[in-house]
Amino acid sequence: MTKKRGKLYILSGPSGAGKSTVISHVIKNRDDLSFSVSATTRQPREGETEGTDYCFITHEEFKKMISDGEFLEYAEYVGSLYGTPREPVIKSLNSGRSIVLDIETQGARQVIKSMPEAITIFLLPPSLTELEQRLRYRNLDSEEKIVRRMETAKRELQEASNYDYIVINADKETAAYEIDSIITAEKCKTENRTEFINK
Amino acid sequence: MTKKRGKLYILSGPSGAGKSTVISHVIKNRDDLSFSVSATTRQPREGETEGTDYCFITHEEFKKMISDGEFLEYAEYVGSLYGTPREPVIKSLNSGRSIVLDIETQGARQVIKSMPEAITIFLLPPSLTELEQRLRYRNLDSEEKIVRRMETAKRELQEASNYDYIVINADKETAAYEIDSIITAEKCKTENRTEFINK
Repeated sequence: MTKKRGKLYILSGPSGAGKSTVISHVIKNRDDLSFSVSATTRQPREGETEGTDYCFITHEEFKKMISDGEFLEYAEYVGSLYGTPREPVIKSLNSGRSIVLDIETQGARQVIKSMPEAITIFLLPPSLTELEQRLRYRNLDSEEKIVRRMETAKRELQEASNYDYIVINADKETAAYEIDSIITAEKCKTENRTEFINK
Repeated sequence: MTKKRGKLYILSGPSGAGKSTVISHVIKNRDDLSFSVSATTRQPREGETEGTDYCFITHEEFKKMISDGEFLEYAEYVGSLYGTPREPVIKSLNSGRSIVLDIETQGARQVIKSMPEAITIFLLPPSLTELEQRLRYRNLDSEEKIVRRMETAKRELQEASNYDYIVINADKETAAYEIDSIITAEKCKTENRTEFINK
């Protein structure tokens, strides 16, 4: 019997929507889902761990990975480079384990082009006002960067309607429950149960 | 603002798959979902309550409801008549509350014809052997009726692949969690979030 392939999930949403908090909640409670660790040229934030949150690399290392074709997607985002290393994603899917990519909309479009079976989820803040408050509250960015993040967010929100699912992060438990539900429901879709029916 | 319409769920599956147990688990924990009480000409089983599990009516009453066009669907199943009264379903959907119909595959086809937006879930026993054991264990049916139920079950299983989702009832908590997930995921589908995006 051939092993069933894992599913590829793409989670996008503006900076400050709470993607990493929510997705770590979801992964904690599932043994069938991994998180794809992105490579980035941006500086680590307080509390971020190398290899768990991101692989922090230099601009030169990033450029080399691009020219070696090691990225499934990469993009510049608010002044830094972010990329998804291809190999761990393919390994995970082939081993039957689903994987979730936390990537912005530009990278998502690249992935969907090569893997159209990807299931896409957009995480929205409850409102733009709330998003701006969160960005200020976390106190990570200069005023100039907050303004850029808000402009990027408004552009990204236009793309939410191209995603399969939209989850609104009013509170992180509910948002995590909704993403968990999406993953469970996708497994229950009839096209994913053919092995059982044939049996 | 116009009120959002509820969603129509159809749950089918062979006798003994555990539909009523599982669905009552799901409904207990959701305030956005009702259960459509079917009318039937079969005798109440021990523990079944009139108006909650079924509306138990006579053959004559059933025939009158048919001729008055009061059924969304009706069908004969293992020697008795079962039908879904139209009015409570339409009322629930118009009030924004989703509703689930526990109906067999023949009735499901009738409903889908008039309401193709219905979301269909097939509940499967883990195996036919297990199903037969459950039917014997619940001790409700004569040997002859068990044989008929098993024949009907085998016919119905062929139709599982026409449903949107398949849930396998190996244990009722997991099956209830999966159906709950399907209902939550359907609400997160982008086409059901348009109001929020426009805002």
